[in-house]
Amino acid sequence: MDSSTPASGNSAPTVRRRTGGRSARVRAQVVEAVGALLLEAGYDGLTVDAVAERADVHRTTVYRRWRDVGGLLADVLDAAADDTWQPADTGTLEGDLTALNQELYEALSSGPTLTTALIAASFRSAEAAAALSRFWEDRYERCAVVVARAAARGEVPAETAPRALLVAATAPLYHELLLLRTAPDPALPDRAARAAAAAARTGAFAAAAG
Amino acid sequence: MDSSTPASGNSAPTVRRRTGGRSARVRAQVVEAVGALLLEAGYDGLTVDAVAERADVHRTTVYRRWRDVGGLLADVLDAAADDTWQPADTGTLEGDLTALNQELYEALSSGPTLTTALIAASFRSAEAAAALSRFWEDRYERCAVVVARAAARGEVPAETAPRALLVAATAPLYHELLLLRTAPDPALPDRAARAAAAAARTGAFAAAAG
Repeated sequence: MDSSTPASGNSAPTVRRRTGGRSARVRAQVVEAVGALLLEAGYDGLTVDAVAERADVHRTTVYRRWRDVGGLLADVLDAAADDTWQPADTGTLEGDLTALNQELYEALSSGPTLTTALIAASFRSAEAAAALSRFWEDRYERCAVVVARAAARGEVPAETAPRALLVAATAPLYHELLLLRTAPDPALPDRAARAAAAAARTGAFAAAAG
Repeated sequence: MDSSTPASGNSAPTVRRRTGGRSARVRAQVVEAVGALLLEAGYDGLTVDAVAERADVHRTTVYRRWRDVGGLLADVLDAAADDTWQPADTGTLEGDLTALNQELYEALSSGPTLTTALIAASFRSAEAAAALSRFWEDRYERCAVVVARAAARGEVPAETAPRALLVAATAPLYHELLLLRTAPDPALPDRAARAAAAAARTGAFAAAAG
């Protein structure tokens, strides 16, 4: 999402800026600075002044365009969503879900990462929380194709609800690694994917299921 | 867990205090005050002095016994675990998991609750995070009987791993309500329970499954 009001916190259509100009360069510097500071010192180390200094951008520019820490965090997430990421196409539902979970496992288990720092920050800033929700909803929408392919192959009922299945596959990773804070278990991504695929094959996520 | 060193943060055997005495009364007042302050003002509103005033306990007592905010949060969680809670016995795996998820859903979806406040605080205090992990591990251990009963009835393979199944059943609720922050969906507890039970029946959580 490339927005001229990155901190506006709404999902209304926005005007696309020229890419590659000064504005895009400044945004890239600021986004990188926010990520670096968040990793180093967490939410408490994040101030507009620290970001401006780290990004080598005038603080007035940062205040005008991002307003506050919430605006900065929201834009980091919106910038992260502004990519061409697509889920892998392995030929089976279980394979696709396992590939998705492997990516997620790397992001959540390799020590303090930007992902975990942003999730922690979402408990401090309503704007970051809203941006994180947008980011995840976008990711789950992109992954709906995994379920559509499985339905086309006859692996799961045609009326399978993509989001419910995708959440079932991925939620155990968030729960174990972020909330329960258990030691990373390399078997977890595959086990969670296999269980969700098995449930889906029985029709557990079919929209009409009672 | 009733511990003479409630803020010690370890799981070593501890000496049981007399219950009902002054010490137990002071602890009850302090635990209640921490919960009330956390609900009203979140982690940022939680200080040892504010807790002492709210609990009507001398601040020196609070500092000596709980040391700091991390120690207070850990003891609130340890006090919460010091109960006789057991999962419902409905006669079926899906029924038991649904009952468990309904309780969880109430705790996570009824506006700001102590549960959500404690989880948010766990991202600020390592001591609270460790206490929260202990609390959840204890709850999952108590719920293992749900899986044992299902195995005894022949609903799932005998080698089904209780924890993996229980996490699969409950994780979608934490993910949707705490992290994705989607609007509460009354169908969620049952859907997540049904899907986990369906996966378990296929042997997806059997320890030997590859």
